[in-house]
Amino acid sequence: VRARRADALRNIKNVRVAAEDAFASDGVTVPVDEIARRAGVGVGTLYRHFPTKASLVEAVVVARSSKFLERAHELAEGPDAGSCLFALVQELVQLATDKKELSDELARAGIGQDKLRLPAKEELERVMGDLLRRAQDAGRVRRDLGTADLGRMIMGTCLAADHQGPQSTERLVAVMCDGLRAVNSPGLRAVAPA
Amino acid sequence: VRARRADALRNIKNVRVAAEDAFASDGVTVPVDEIARRAGVGVGTLYRHFPTKASLVEAVVVARSSKFLERAHELAEGPDAGSCLFALVQELVQLATDKKELSDELARAGIGQDKLRLPAKEELERVMGDLLRRAQDAGRVRRDLGTADLGRMIMGTCLAADHQGPQSTERLVAVMCDGLRAVNSPGLRAVAPA
Repeated sequence: VRARRADALRNIKNVRVAAEDAFASDGVTVPVDEIARRAGVGVGTLYRHFPTKASLVEAVVVARSSKFLERAHELAEGPDAGSCLFALVQELVQLATDKKELSDELARAGIGQDKLRLPAKEELERVMGDLLRRAQDAGRVRRDLGTADLGRMIMGTCLAADHQGPQSTERLVAVMCDGLRAVNSPGLRAVAPA
Repeated sequence: VRARRADALRNIKNVRVAAEDAFASDGVTVPVDEIARRAGVGVGTLYRHFPTKASLVEAVVVARSSKFLERAHELAEGPDAGSCLFALVQELVQLATDKKELSDELARAGIGQDKLRLPAKEELERVMGDLLRRAQDAGRVRRDLGTADLGRMIMGTCLAADHQGPQSTERLVAVMCDGLRAVNSPGLRAVAPA
């Protein structure tokens, strides 16, 4: 029984990894047979674990998110809170953009109805909040922002970068991070000529 | 005939101004009679010019947008391109946020179906693009951004600031403007620890 269970877990993982690669190279409309072939399992086995294409996409997003959460904890422990926060922001925008693209592709293909959510949102916010405060205490990030502001800015940047490609995303993240770095911000009073 | 026409135009303007004030103080659900009373016109006159509440809200948005477009042209001529661009960004975020709130209120009240759009989008983009290039040439704004990036960032900031109140909006705009100011941006290469 234990050996069968280990087999099943290995199959699930192989399918998930094959699905992630296939979605990345061919999009979510890639046939399920092709994913099974790449994973080295039968289609019946694949369907037993993932009855719908949407459940397969969700598994990919969940796996990527837990990997990201590990990475976030790793960054939260890093010695240079500023650089770690900027890395977290950049990688989170990347994750959310990828997830959004999968979600949109699913919707276009008429496969999934609900929007995919990033799991462990609360835990991620907590880690991000701790890192933000450490970076602020270290004088690397402006002090006039809270975790909620940061979360909303990341969301706004994701929406702004949506479907514009990686270079545009990189530019927008750079502007945001440079804005966060502005510890001696002149603020908006210096902005508007009457 | 000319006098009657002038009367009609004055009535339209009075109603629009009264509607703008009433929406700002009491929200879009303010009764039409109340708007007519404040404008000093009969309800029949109001309905003749604005058959629906949605048409009244749209008139308010259009009027505010054309006022803003004048302001944008004024800023585009300003001597200090950097400050003028930052002012334009701040005021455009304000305009779009107000418009979005009116639009959402309409939807909640079950009055309007379509999203309100900001008119003269192309003209505004052109003015903004000219100002961006002038500010970049003056060394006040980073050079790695185009007009489309700027437009998307403004949109993202509006979405991030949505319904969070004026102070949150001000913080998010400040971060964005400081990010734009970073003419010697270290870029993202300096961001991510491996």
